[in-house]
Formats: sequence, C-alpha cells, structure tokens
Amino acid sequence: MKQYLTVDEWSIIEEGFHPDYNQITESVFSLGNGRMGQRANFEETFSGETLQGNYVAGVYYPDKTRVGWWKNGYPEYFAKVLNAANWIGIDVQLDGETLDLNLCEVSDFRRELNMREGWLERRFTATLPSGKQVRVEAKRFTSIVDDEVGAIKYSVTPLNFSGTLTLTPYVDADIMNADSNYDEKFWTEVLQEAQPTEGYVIAETKKTFFHVCTGQKFVVTQNGQEIAVNASPTERTKYIASRFEVAVQQGQETVLYKYAANLSSENHPKEDLLTNTKKVISAAAEKGFEQLLREQAAAWAAKWEESDIMIEGDAAAQQGIRFNIFQLNQTYTGEDERLNIGPKGFTGEKYGGTTYWDTEAYCLPFYLATADPQVARNLLIYRYKHLPKAIENAEKLGFTGGAALYPMVTINGEECHNEWEITFEEIHRNGAIAHAIHDYIRYTGDDSYLAEYGVEVLVGISRFWAQRVNWSSAKNQYVMLGVTGPNEYENNVNNNWYTSTIATWTLEYTLKALQHVQETEPARYAELVSKLNLNEEKEPAQWQHVIDHMYYPVDEELGIFLQQDGFLDKEQTLVKDLPASDRPLNQKWSWDRILRSVFIKQADVLQGIYLFEDRYDLETIRRNYDFYEPRTVHESSLSPCVHAILAAKLGDEERAYEFYLRTARLDLDDYNNDTEDGCHITSMAGTWMSVVQGFGGMRVRDNQLHFNPFIPAGWSSYSFKIRFRGHLLNIKVTKDNVQIENQSAQPLTLQVFDQAQTIDAHSKAEIAHQLA
Amino acid sequence: MKQYLTVDEWSIIEEGFHPDYNQITESVFSLGNGRMGQRANFEETFSGETLQGNYVAGVYYPDKTRVGWWKNGYPEYFAKVLNAANWIGIDVQLDGETLDLNLCEVSDFRRELNMREGWLERRFTATLPSGKQVRVEAKRFTSIVDDEVGAIKYSVTPLNFSGTLTLTPYVDADIMNADSNYDEKFWTEVLQEAQPTEGYVIAETKKTFFHVCTGQKFVVTQNGQEIAVNASPTERTKYIASRFEVAVQQGQETVLYKYAANLSSENHPKEDLLTNTKKVISAAAEKGFEQLLREQAAAWAAKWEESDIMIEGDAAAQQGIRFNIFQLNQTYTGEDERLNIGPKGFTGEKYGGTTYWDTEAYCLPFYLATADPQVARNLLIYRYKHLPKAIENAEKLGFTGGAALYPMVTINGEECHNEWEITFEEIHRNGAIAHAIHDYIRYTGDDSYLAEYGVEVLVGISRFWAQRVNWSSAKNQYVMLGVTGPNEYENNVNNNWYTSTIATWTLEYTLKALQHVQETEPARYAELVSKLNLNEEKEPAQWQHVIDHMYYPVDEELGIFLQQDGFLDKEQTLVKDLPASDRPLNQKWSWDRILRSVFIKQADVLQGIYLFEDRYDLETIRRNYDFYEPRTVHESSLSPCVHAILAAKLGDEERAYEFYLRTARLDLDDYNNDTEDGCHITSMAGTWMSVVQGFGGMRVRDNQLHFNPFIPAGWSSYSFKIRFRGHLLNIKVTKDNVQIENQSAQPLTLQVFDQAQTIDAHSKAEIAHQLA
Repeated sequence: MKQYLTVDEWSIIEEGFHPDYNQITESVFSLGNGRMGQRANFEETFSGETLQGNYVAGVYYPDKTRVGWWKNGYPEYFAKVLNAANWIGIDVQLDGETLDLNLCEVSDFRRELNMREGWLERRFTATLPSGKQVRVEAKRFTSIVDDEVGAIKYSVTPLNFSGTLTLTPYVDADIMNADSNYDEKFWTEVLQEAQPTEGYVIAETKKTFFHVCTGQKFVVTQNGQEIAVNASPTERTKYIASRFEVAVQQGQETVLYKYAANLSSENHPKEDLLTNTKKVISAAAEKGFEQLLREQAAAWAAKWEESDIMIEGDAAAQQGIRFNIFQLNQTYTGEDERLNIGPKGFTGEKYGGTTYWDTEAYCLPFYLATADPQVARNLLIYRYKHLPKAIENAEKLGFTGGAALYPMVTINGEECHNEWEITFEEIHRNGAIAHAIHDYIRYTGDDSYLAEYGVEVLVGISRFWAQRVNWSSAKNQYVMLGVTGPNEYENNVNNNWYTSTIATWTLEYTLKALQHVQETEPARYAELVSKLNLNEEKEPAQWQHVIDHMYYPVDEELGIFLQQDGFLDKEQTLVKDLPASDRPLNQKWSWDRILRSVFIKQADVLQGIYLFEDRYDLETIRRNYDFYEPRTVHESSLSPCVHAILAAKLGDEERAYEFYLRTARLDLDDYNNDTEDGCHITSMAGTWMSVVQGFGGMRVRDNQLHFNPFIPAGWSSYSFKIRFRGHLLNIKVTKDNVQIENQSAQPLTLQVFDQAQTIDAHSKAEIAHQLA
Repeated sequence: MKQYLTVDEWSIIEEGFHPDYNQITESVFSLGNGRMGQRANFEETFSGETLQGNYVAGVYYPDKTRVGWWKNGYPEYFAKVLNAANWIGIDVQLDGETLDLNLCEVSDFRRELNMREGWLERRFTATLPSGKQVRVEAKRFTSIVDDEVGAIKYSVTPLNFSGTLTLTPYVDADIMNADSNYDEKFWTEVLQEAQPTEGYVIAETKKTFFHVCTGQKFVVTQNGQEIAVNASPTERTKYIASRFEVAVQQGQETVLYKYAANLSSENHPKEDLLTNTKKVISAAAEKGFEQLLREQAAAWAAKWEESDIMIEGDAAAQQGIRFNIFQLNQTYTGEDERLNIGPKGFTGEKYGGTTYWDTEAYCLPFYLATADPQVARNLLIYRYKHLPKAIENAEKLGFTGGAALYPMVTINGEECHNEWEITFEEIHRNGAIAHAIHDYIRYTGDDSYLAEYGVEVLVGISRFWAQRVNWSSAKNQYVMLGVTGPNEYENNVNNNWYTSTIATWTLEYTLKALQHVQETEPARYAELVSKLNLNEEKEPAQWQHVIDHMYYPVDEELGIFLQQDGFLDKEQTLVKDLPASDRPLNQKWSWDRILRSVFIKQADVLQGIYLFEDRYDLETIRRNYDFYEPRTVHESSLSPCVHAILAAKLGDEERAYEFYLRTARLDLDDYNNDTEDGCHITSMAGTWMSVVQGFGGMRVRDNQLHFNPFIPAGWSSYSFKIRFRGHLLNIKVTKDNVQIENQSAQPLTLQVFDQAQTIDAHSKAEIAHQLA
C-alpha cells in the first residue's frame, strides 16, 4: 500500500516527483473518453521507468496464442486492444540539451488529475545537467465532447538563462505492445504526411487491417501572442514530427498548443481517414485549447450531475469514490454498441482490453443507474451482436441446435482465453449475460427489449444449459459436471451451486420471456420461432424438466447451499487461521494446494444469493454468509462488493464498511501492488455498488426503487445521484435521516425502509432512520 | 495405418523409396546403444522431408518453460535431451554435382534395420539430374560393445560414367532442436580440430555446460585396397569436415569407412575429452569396420539369447515383438544409473528424452525378466538418487518433514512439466515408484535393497501420502482431493480409487519394509531412523491410521470400485456407441467434453486391479473389467497391455489377443499417425507384458514363477526367454503343450497352471494345456 497522493475531493494530486512510482501514477492519472485513452506518460523524453500506453477503442490484433500444452478446442489467438500511436510526444531541447526528467534535478513537481473538469496537468522545475533551469507546465485532456480529439498546452519558461528552445511535437505509430506473445510488432505503415505545423500517420494493424490515422497540428505563442515558427517536418516509418527553434529570454514563457486526433477505420471509410482527420484537427485548432477545455469542463459537469457520489466527513473516501466514477465514465460512454469495458479500461495493456463477465455482473448496475438507458442497452446489444459467434463457440465444444456459449474473454465475439478450466468450464458467464437482460429490464422497464433482442440471446443460452446438464441415473436428477464457478480457486468441479442456480434461472426466465413476447407481440413471436427454429413442443418442455429436476448441492445439517459436490470433504480451516506469510495464496501456495483447500477467491454461493436474494429468507442468507465469508480470501477485487452488500443487508454495518474499504481506494493506494499494470476499472463499479446497493440499500422490485440506507459511522453524510425511468434523484443519507430529492418534473413513488414515499417533482422528502 | 514395410522375422525392411514416409522411417529405423542414438537420417545431403536426430544420453538443456497462464509452483524450465552433433554426415558430389535423393530418380532402394545383428543398411541407385547414375550402399551401426563408437561403411559406384567423386565426411554440432520453446540454439562452441582424415568438435550446452566431443576418422578404399587421399580439412563454428576427390571409373566401387565417437563430460573430465575421443576413435579405426561389426553381431546375439520372443505361424507378429525388444535394448542397457528411458528413446525429440512413470509401471518388468538384476536395480537407484530433489519438489508444493513427491517428468530429478492438473495432481506416479521397489524385490528376491536404498524412498513417499490426504469430517474418513489418476481424461477429481489404493498400499509396504529392516539389520535401521529423522512413535501410527480409515469410492450395487467420486453421475454411454468420426476423442472433442464424459483414456481402476490382483477374487475383477473396459478408448498406448493381461486372466483369450494387437506393430504400421515424432518406446514394454504376463500368464508369487499360458488361435507356437534368480528359462507354448526349458545349471521349481513343476538343470518339462 502506497499513500503518496494528496487527498482532495475533486482531484488526484501528486506533490513532488516519485519516479519509482511513475508506472503506478501513469495508470492512476490516465485519461480516456470511451473512444480513446492514454496513460499519464510525459510529453517530453523520459528515460526512466515508464509504460507507454495509447489505446484506440475497438482496434485490436489477434495475437497468436501462447500455451504450454495445447488442448483441443483452444482458440488460435488472443485478441488485444493495441498500444497505438503516441500522439502526446513533444521533444524539448534547451540550447541543444534534451529535457529528460530522469536526468534532471526536479523540484516543485506537481501532477493533478482534475476529475471535475477532466484534465491532467503537470508542473515542474527542472535543472538540467548543464545547470540550465526551466519551468514547465503541461496540461492535456481527451475530449468527451469530440471523442476523437485530444489537446495539449505545453509551456516552457527558462528560469536562469536565455537561449534557444527547440520543440519537436511528433506522432509516433511505430509502437510495440509490451504484451506481445511472440515479441512481434502489430502495426504496419500505410502513410505519413508531415507539413511544417501539422502531420499525419496512418498505421494498419496486421491481420485485422484496421487503419488508424493519428494527426497533430500546433500553434506556438510567446507573451500570449501566436508566433510564426520555421518548422522542419520529418517523416520516417510510422512517424512524423515537426522541429522548430525559438529564441527564448529568461523568464519568458513559450507555449506549444498541440491538437491531436485519432480516427479509426471503424468509424470512417479508409479512403477518407486522412481527410477527415485533417478536418477534425482543424476544427479543434480553430476552437482553440481554452474553448475546448471549457466545453470539456461543461460536459464533465453534466456527467457528474448524473453520477456523482458525495461523502461528507471523509475526504479520502470522497476522493476514492469519485475516482472510480470518473474512471468508469472515462472508459465507457455507451455511445457505440461495438465497444465494451476492459478490466483495465484504457489504463494499461493487461487483459488486452477484452470483455469479461465483469461487464454484466459488476458494471451494468452502475451504467443503469447513472446514465441514459441507451448506455446499458448498448452493453446488452454488444452481446446480442456476438450471438452468432457464441453459437459457433458452443459448436466448437460439441453443442448443437443454436446453443450459445459466450466467450470468457473476447473482443469480437470469439473466445480468446486458453486455460481449459476457464475457457471451457467457467460457463456461469453465460448466466450473467442472461441475467443482465433481466437486470436491464427490471431497472428500465423496457420489456420491449425482449422481443427486439433479448429472447434470441436467452434461447441460445438456455439451449446451452439444457445440453450442458446431463441426467444422472445415480441421482435421478440433472447434474452439471466439470465446471468452474466464480470462485476460480476451484476448477473442474461437479454441481457448482451458483452455476446450476443461474442455469435454471435462465431457463425459467427464458420461458417467461417467450411467453411475454407471445402475449404482447404475437407476430414477432412467430417470427422468432421461425428464426430460432424453436421446437415449441419439445424445447420449453425439456427446459421445464431440467428446472423441475435439477440437483443442487446442499448441506441440510448446516442449512447451507454447498459451493459444489464434496465441499465438506475439505479440511475446514478459516482465513483467520492462515498465517500472514501465506497470503496472498495465489503467490504463496501451489495451485493444487489452493484448489483442494477450502479457501474461496471470490463470492460464489454468495454471488448467487446476491443475484437472487428475494428467493431466500434472511436466516438462510445469514447462514450461508456466516459459512462462506470466513473461508473467502477476496483475492479478486470483484469479491468485496458482494460481501459489502450482503453484510449491509444482514445489518452488519461495520463489516459492510470494511468490505467497501477494501476496494474504495484500491488503485489510489496501489493496495494490491499491481496498479502499474493499469487500474481495476471493472471493480470500481463494484465499489459503487457497495455504496449504492450496500450502504444505500438500493434495489428495484416490482418497478419501484427501494432504499434501506445506513450511514457508516465515520461519515457525516453521503449522497448519490440516480437516474430511474426518466427521473433524476439525489439520495442523501445523514446521521439523522434520509433525504430524497426528486430533481425531475414528475412525481415518483418509491420505498424507503419498506415504506412507500411519493416525492413530488422538484421536491425532497426526509425520512428518519429506522432503528433496527 | 501404413503398411509399406516388408514383413521379415529379423529385419525391418523398406523396399522402394517412400519419401513421403521418410520421417516415419527415420524413427522406425533408429539406432541406439543406451549411450547414444540416432534417427535413420541419410549420410548424404537430403533436401526432402527429414527430422535430423542425434542424441547423447544424459546431455540435456533446461529450456525455459512456455506457458499460457502461469500457476504458482510451475517449474522454470523443461529439461530436454538435446539434438546433438550429426556424426554421420558425408556430402557426396559426382563431377561437382551433389547427390541428393530428393533431386534424383531413385531405383532399387532398399533400407534394412537388421535387428539380429544391430545394423542399418541402405542401398539405392540414383540418377542425378545430369543423368549420371550411381549405386550407393551405406551401412552403419552404433556399437553396443563400445557404446561411444559408431561406424559407417559408405560405398559409391558410378554406373554410367567415369569422373571425379568428391566426398566430404563431416561432424556438425551446429544443431538446433526442432523442439525449442523460444527458437534458441542450445549449443555453444568450445573447440574444433580438423586434420586431413580426422576431426573433432567439442560443443557445450548452454546453462548445463555439458561438453560433448564428437569426432570422425576415415579410411578410403578402391578395389578393396586402402588408398591415400589428399583431403582438405575445414573448420567453422561447431563444424569440421575433410573434403577430398578421387578419380572413379565406371563400375568401380569407392568405399569410405567413417569411424565416429561421442564422448561426453558426464563420463570424462572435460580436459581429457579431446584426447580420449581420439583414443576411442583410433582404437575403432584400428579394429576396422568388419571386425567392429562382427563384435556388434555377437553382442546382439547374446542380448537375444536372454530376451527373445519367438512366434511361429505369424511373421508380422514375430517382426513386431522383436522390433519392440530391439528398441528397448537399444534405449536402455542399465549400465548407468544416471540414465533412464524416455518415452521416445533415441528416436525423436518428443517428450525431450525425459523420464515418466512409464519406466516403473511398464518398463521395469521387461528389464527384470530379460536382463541382469543390476539393470532393473539401476532404474531404482536412478530414483533413489533423485530423492533429495523429490523432497524439494514436495516442499515447493507445501509439504514438509521429508515428504517426497517425485516429478511427473524429469531428467535430473527436478520437475519439468507445467500443466497443473498433471504436474501437481497426477501424483499416483509416486505410488508407481514405491511399487517398483516391491516389484524388483519380488522378482529378484534382493530384499537387502530395502535397507540399502528402498526404505528411504518409501518413507519419503509415505510421508507425502500421509500429508496429501485430509480428514473429512463429513465422511469420518481420510479423503484424497484434487488428483488426476492414470486416466488423464479426468482432471482434479476427488478420491481417485487407483491413487488412494496405491497410497495406502505404499503406507502398508513402508511399514513392512521398516519392520523388515529393523528385524534383519537393526544397526542400519537405527541409522535410517536417525538419517530420516523418523518419529518412530508417531509416524507409523499415523500411517496405520490412514490405512485403517481411508475412503475408497465404490458402488455396492454394481459391485465395482468407482474411478472417483461422482463417476456414476456421468452419462453412461459406451465406446461402441461413439461415432467413428468422433475418434480419437483427443483430436475431435474439446477438453471439457472429454473430461465430463465417461470415457477413459487408459486403464485406471483396472491398472490398480492389475497391480494388486491378488487382493481381488475373479468375480470382482470381472465386474470391474466388464464395467470399465467398454468405457475405455485406449488413447494412450500404455492402456491395451493392462487390458490384455486382465482379459487373459479372465480367460478371454480373444480379447487378450485383440488388445495385444493394438500395440504389437504400433510404430511399424504407424498406427496412430505419430511415429514421425519417434517410436513409442515405453509402450513397447507393455506389448512385451501382453505376451509374457498376458498370454504366458507369468507372475511371481512367494518367490516362485507362475505360468498360466494360452496360445492365440492364429499362432503355431510362441516362446519367450526369461531370467529369474540366476536361471535362464525358455518357455515355449504350442497348441499342444507348454515346454519349459531350464537352460541353467540349477534345477528350478515353478508353477504351471498352479501345479508345481521342478525342472532340472539343462532340462525341459512339457506340460499339457489345462482345459478350462
């Protein structure tokens, strides 16, 4: 755990230069706008530790699979979003001496990621080896108004000399992934064009043939006045630059405004890429940096209006939760249903920018509650569009008749992952994708989604489950053999309770969905029956038979659901008895030892109880929680949120807060020593859930919002913004009461502490805390 | 299946050139002498499909592990016996035109591997692109008399021209493994020395720093007379050659005799390698090719005297079984306890020449029965010497107090393999290593082995088992969770019957062994107690507690042992119902589908029943056989032999013969389409077992040999040679009777059809078949 960042409610601030932590800081201070993103690398040369990272959403490369021992069925490649052109680069020389902070004495260093307005600023004084001293201030952002645009204001002031300042803004697309299975470069050259004050590079990904045009245009000012510079453009492979010299006086500020853009062939015809990039950049340059920045701040203000969480009395918590919301909004905007949410967003290469079940299980609720329903809907449509690939994927594994198995890891719908116990067996992801449809409709009320898209996905997944179970003559029930549940510290188990539960839930929901469509849109229903080749006689009956005869492991004596067959054969030790030196298990124990131990990586049975809580009485929930939580090591950042929510539900406010704390500042404090690889974007949504569903006790039942809030002991108050079916609400929880403000033009009835409350338009209700 | 080889009782013969099958033929016609070995590559240039392969036993390189997803506990490297210097090379030019069969018209091609005498011969007529025609006869062998020596006789006769023949015998140590995880070369250069008619290369393996000196010396004759040649020696990196021209007349034979040697620093001080190699080669050259060949033939005759199996009435079967015996004897001679038996022997790179449990489970019985006891004993001592590494290996996995887990795959005692379900979980190998001690003592009567070496290994393994089980409160018994049994088509299962059975057997045998040593060698016992830090009070008691309270899965209703918990939850389909297009499963089905299916790769419960058959009555054996065999796909070449032996025991002679057939000519007919990677050396021992233990019904019980033979319907007779405690026996089974000839100087009492027979020295007994 590292606590080198300054606590501030709206900004992440590094005071003083921490080169040893630079790769962590580069992750934390990342910028993104859903379309592109970038680690907080320096504009100027830096020979110290750095992980360059620029990413263009949707532009990926199928890197050839690396594996020790091939298993039949493995995918041939792992698709990864590529490290793309560096568009921020500005080489700086002072009388011919290169500015490189790794070689300078650095003082007054300050880096700020301003979350309220969405920009990154860095200021420092550097003393070069020659003794020359300069002051630099660099500010940049990736625009959320025009998501192809980035802009930089880079200011240099000589402090103790007059001389020549040489600046070389460049675009470098000759980039290599740090993560490349066979040390290959993934980009080839298409075109370079360098003009004196602008330049463009088009690079193409191998195999996938995406084109990305990256351009720059710049303006220089001294004393606030634009000056003409005599720049020499240069081109080399996948690289353009413009170099110019200006005379500088001691104390005189020279400012380079650099406007950049990334346009990809995903959004523009290849033949228009260059022209369009020029247009986009010219428009940005015309507006100018300050105007672009004003628009950026306004757009971020609107985002915060919808999604902010305020915490009074705990600035560190305030900073932590805002950071999570900020990063989630930087990662996914929901404007393009071809895109999704990589576990590291645009903050690193790890996991290759691919999509996991994290999206449906952890991220969806955040976007449902804080953005236009279209945003969450696009996450669903992403999977709908991958349905044919999911059917192909299932066919590769021997399934037939339109059964669909969504991949564990994907970009384009094809499976990328190659660990048999995950790729082939961690099939509960299929359930999460089905459940997301339910979740979306439950929240939005948009049940037309079923007929339009949902049923097709549900039928594909149900067909998979119905084939994936088999009849056990020994048990006279259906069993599900050889699966890996959410707890990846068990592999290839039989009858994982969570997986079996979500499987039959899917079957039930699919039957209901079909019935709903049949009743509400009979024509569409007929169309679907035909399109899906649905055997109306046999398939629903077979699904019902599975529902009615599914085996779920339980222990009657303990009154708990069993994570899987044989769980009680394990040595029943508890996490509290583990020596600290054995933690984290995944770094200290061999894999087999972890597998046969009782220890649970992340919520498994409890994940199921969380999803389907209304099925279980509090005592059942408590017994399972009390049994599994002490055996859970939470070595996935996706684990604590579920525990926080269940602890809150069980009235254990202290534990709920403890679980919240585990992820609240995960990346800000580099809690797991791995933030240098990138931020834990998807687990940030889990932290949001801990607050809203955990502390706030928010649920949607029967088309109504429910709240059962409590306030953590150390906080004065907290509040969160929620969008719900055309309403914007601000829920504030103080020590005394719960204040719900309806900021919309329509009244809304909701449940607080299980009491109906109708709140008029533009009004606020105050409800006293219910004492347990 | 390919049947392009000529059936012959003593030779493997290829008539006509089959370049498409060349890599298969190179495997099948391999030569070896336990110290070095070689694929049947051509001496002269060949630009067609070929897999060069020369191997020097014990000389390995730790190739960096390649893995998709690292698991804690994986080894850093995979040690592999390296492809070493090519010592057979002879470039041939005719009037400057290179002889390359890939570019010639080839006629009268014949290749013969003479198993009786241990040599490889190749003859052909080649018409070069220029039209020049030559006759070539090449004969070579790796000496089993001096196992560092190889010799080649290479004869060239121009058929339709007179001109210049240029020969360039060379040694090339600039060799790359086809199997290299990161495309590295593994050899570096130490020294080259080229003289006109001899030359030497010393190459060193990276990281392990083995030195191997490979040398050549040659003599040329025309008209049977040695001629002087004016050879120009050349050296380049890791390569020496001597090039000379001779005038040749049409019809005149020129013969190059090339004497070569491979000496390694495993057997010679590095500083003496060059000198010693010169000595060895000079001695060989002095003897001359024909004399060396006579010695070779005599030595092989002696081997056959001990190990031959004769089959009358089935020449293909005769050829098949001799091929297996020949290859086993080429692979391992038992003279060096640092060496072991790679699954491919010296016939290919696959499996890296490493040691598997194949050695103990399948190969040991062959060497026990056909060679001096020292040979089998050295296989045991190999493991004894690795005991400290096995203890380290167990420590890496969290075991303590001297518990030993032998590696799944090894050369130097360290684990090489990196699939968690195998490396960490296929722990039954530990049992096989314990059982081999029992097997050796049962056969040889050499129970002093226990005190000298055996007990230490047994205690280490027993300590492992005692820690690997855990007490299940649910079952009130010990369970063994998370294992992979011999059937690798199941992974990470609980309570694999075979593994649990061999575990408690080990504990029992260790207790007996300790008691035996205590009674017979009390001083040594005290020494061992101290050396092993044996807690005499606690450890044996704990082992006994495990023995007494172990859980074994069974199904009472079916009266069978269950392969593992939950086996009967599987869909109970049978192999006969599998469509042919689904076979082999491991190429047609995804791994998860294989795992959750009922199908068994190789004997698992039946392997246990085979090992411990005296514990079970025939009906129990039959029920288990009848249950498991129809579910077994035999996709390991190690599976059929166990089934053959059990089928024979159950009186099902037809099935026994069928199982024998599956591996009898596995490589000769390239049954599995994979012989190009090398021959299935360890499964050859299984075929031998099918004949001797299956058809011959040979067992050792209570210090006596037992036979219960039958004769397969299509055979006139078969006979096999057996060494047993100083006796040499020839057991011949005809349609009429069983003839047992005692070729030794002492009478021997044995059991035939459960009747005691005493056979005098140099006498033969004839016993009529018992009719069932």
